[in-house]
Amino acid sequence: MNLKSWIEIPAGSDFPLENLPFGIGRSREGEIAAYTRIGDTAVNLAALDASAVFTGMAFDYSAAFRQPVLNDFIAMGKAAHRALRKALQAFFAAGNKPDATLIKSLTEKVLFPAASVEMLMPVKVTDYTDFYSSIEHATNVGKMFRDPANALLPNWRHLPVGYHGRASSIVISGTDIRRPQGQTMPAGADAPVFGPSKMLDFELEMAFVVGKSTSLGEPVAAAGAEDYIFGFLLFNDLSARDIQSWEYVPLGPFLSKNFGSVVSPWIVTLEALEPFRVKGPEQEPGVLPYLKTEGLRNFDINLEVLIRPENGDENVICRSNFRHMYWNICQQLAHHTVNGCNINTGDLYASGTISGPDPGSYGSMLELTWRGTHPIRLSDGTERKFVNDHDTVIMRGYAERDGLRIGFGECTTKILPALT
Amino acid sequence: MNLKSWIEIPAGSDFPLENLPFGIGRSREGEIAAYTRIGDTAVNLAALDASAVFTGMAFDYSAAFRQPVLNDFIAMGKAAHRALRKALQAFFAAGNKPDATLIKSLTEKVLFPAASVEMLMPVKVTDYTDFYSSIEHATNVGKMFRDPANALLPNWRHLPVGYHGRASSIVISGTDIRRPQGQTMPAGADAPVFGPSKMLDFELEMAFVVGKSTSLGEPVAAAGAEDYIFGFLLFNDLSARDIQSWEYVPLGPFLSKNFGSVVSPWIVTLEALEPFRVKGPEQEPGVLPYLKTEGLRNFDINLEVLIRPENGDENVICRSNFRHMYWNICQQLAHHTVNGCNINTGDLYASGTISGPDPGSYGSMLELTWRGTHPIRLSDGTERKFVNDHDTVIMRGYAERDGLRIGFGECTTKILPALT
Repeated sequence: MNLKSWIEIPAGSDFPLENLPFGIGRSREGEIAAYTRIGDTAVNLAALDASAVFTGMAFDYSAAFRQPVLNDFIAMGKAAHRALRKALQAFFAAGNKPDATLIKSLTEKVLFPAASVEMLMPVKVTDYTDFYSSIEHATNVGKMFRDPANALLPNWRHLPVGYHGRASSIVISGTDIRRPQGQTMPAGADAPVFGPSKMLDFELEMAFVVGKSTSLGEPVAAAGAEDYIFGFLLFNDLSARDIQSWEYVPLGPFLSKNFGSVVSPWIVTLEALEPFRVKGPEQEPGVLPYLKTEGLRNFDINLEVLIRPENGDENVICRSNFRHMYWNICQQLAHHTVNGCNINTGDLYASGTISGPDPGSYGSMLELTWRGTHPIRLSDGTERKFVNDHDTVIMRGYAERDGLRIGFGECTTKILPALT
Repeated sequence: MNLKSWIEIPAGSDFPLENLPFGIGRSREGEIAAYTRIGDTAVNLAALDASAVFTGMAFDYSAAFRQPVLNDFIAMGKAAHRALRKALQAFFAAGNKPDATLIKSLTEKVLFPAASVEMLMPVKVTDYTDFYSSIEHATNVGKMFRDPANALLPNWRHLPVGYHGRASSIVISGTDIRRPQGQTMPAGADAPVFGPSKMLDFELEMAFVVGKSTSLGEPVAAAGAEDYIFGFLLFNDLSARDIQSWEYVPLGPFLSKNFGSVVSPWIVTLEALEPFRVKGPEQEPGVLPYLKTEGLRNFDINLEVLIRPENGDENVICRSNFRHMYWNICQQLAHHTVNGCNINTGDLYASGTISGPDPGSYGSMLELTWRGTHPIRLSDGTERKFVNDHDTVIMRGYAERDGLRIGFGECTTKILPALT
């Protein structure tokens, strides 16, 4: 049932013609433009637009495709995105193969091996919020740090807990991150010490990108919230657990999180994810009216985290799924704005760590090793309680159903030793 | 000892020739440009620059003065700001009065009654952090909500506690803010309710604007931190206490804060505040080496909050002083970046509520009325536990010494009733 293209799409590719994600790329010549991807081919949208192969389009994308971020393109709105998606699917359809002259021209100016295009931050992140919407994750953390019998705090089932994070330090997949230094309070010590974090962790998350701005004082209703959402990314919310546990009372995580968060390069649109909608978990007790949603508001997206030690092989560390989220994206956005908080195109809203019910599906080392008490053995014989220097953390995500696979590619980051 | 100008400066003005703050204004004709202010005169810097009365300047400000925000001007760096300050002080000095022809031309194009220029947001806020750096405020809150005998949490004296806030909802003085709706948990209830906040509060704060960007992974040392600070604003961190107490565990304040924060229009530079440096409180126990600072790092700035009921008079609600801050701005910036978090020109860092030692110097209604138990009586006979609909909250700040007064003007906001 997959759409066929005259561009080769390898079996099992994350990027069939049904995906058509958006990103920002830099060519070998240094030119920056908007791209989409089909199979292993990166498609320069600015150059494609300039080649005038689209005719009769209702929207003029040319300026938006030439920006160093997608914010202007995203702000064009869903009608523009859908029209482009339709035009791209028609132009690259197997039955529409251009003649050899045009293919030659496109190969020179528009179509590049994906590996030859350096992917950059796809959006200027205007504001960033991190939710805490996996009940399994919140329960695990509550069991470890608070009361195993009352792991969830009283507010947790009534509202999607969230907090503001740092926009400046969100970086593109492939960026190395230095292990943070900071204050920690060692067990039994009577004063804090300063030094590199000893409990550096990943958090397996997804994030959505806002596609439409609101004015201050204007709430977004849960029922219409998806109109404000452009698409999704993989998100690695790196966390220094020892810094976090000392600093976080009473105002929340700060330096334990803002030293770097990593996003995957391709924004996968809601349209591409339509076939993978699923029902979310039952919410008990029922939620207040402003948080009520109907229909299928969760997404069945397989997620995995791998660690590759320096000069070592990839080791799968966990496998989870975005469908586990207790609070869905419509509820998150309705809650975020119910007080009048305004949102902007380019805002990023992350899910919080996505843990599943099984121990192998926990989305952080904190949970997987249960605070370091059950280390994970890698294929090279070394053990991990948390993430080591020179480890590369790799996140992958894809939805798959009836032979159709829509993927996100990778979100990777290598940990560098702390400054000394 | 004040500098004299050929522009009239009323006695007691916040804006002598030693101040020269920067802001963004919109003229009656709708033109937006950078401004400074002398007495009651707003000086259009773009027009002044175009009039070519400055000669031999080492910097070209023309493009930066024509932006809708000051970020580009601020990014030009301290040498450019100081050169401009010097040139402005020379040009407007009493001994340099231009001839009648030039004054006529300047009056048409450059010099306007301050009341005729609408002030806009002076910066595009790239990231916003709120600290919690007043020991009196943190102690008062700890006494009310936690343990009166151990009011400060264990980390408080070791690090400047802070959290990330919302950049999008920071607005300019004069903007009305709607009372937020949200979830609260009434005392004795077994489920949360939804509705307008019943405990809407102000927080008297100051904020500094960052003037120089860093790269991810690059800490700013406390000793050199002022090189990264452009100037100060008054900051009203509006807070819904009932929403806050239900939502804030474990990740901090969120919807209780992000419905609107208000800044004063004029950024007062560090240069203008030089004469008002004072020593901060003794820090006991001593701080870790990365937080050590020398010299005078606090500023003696008088602050006051007034409430004006609809059709009523202004009532002074509290008087405080910025000098009370336990953690200074160098420590705040050094802490914020010690883990490698990058900062950008246009970032805003607020102090947290500035309470003094006396009950009349507390910087929030929460503290002034001790959670509503001691209401404040206004001149019209009404009482306030928190802020009412249609109340205008006014903040003022000024430094004064040896006949020199450097002021901030006002930071005002009127509270509108909640949406129904």
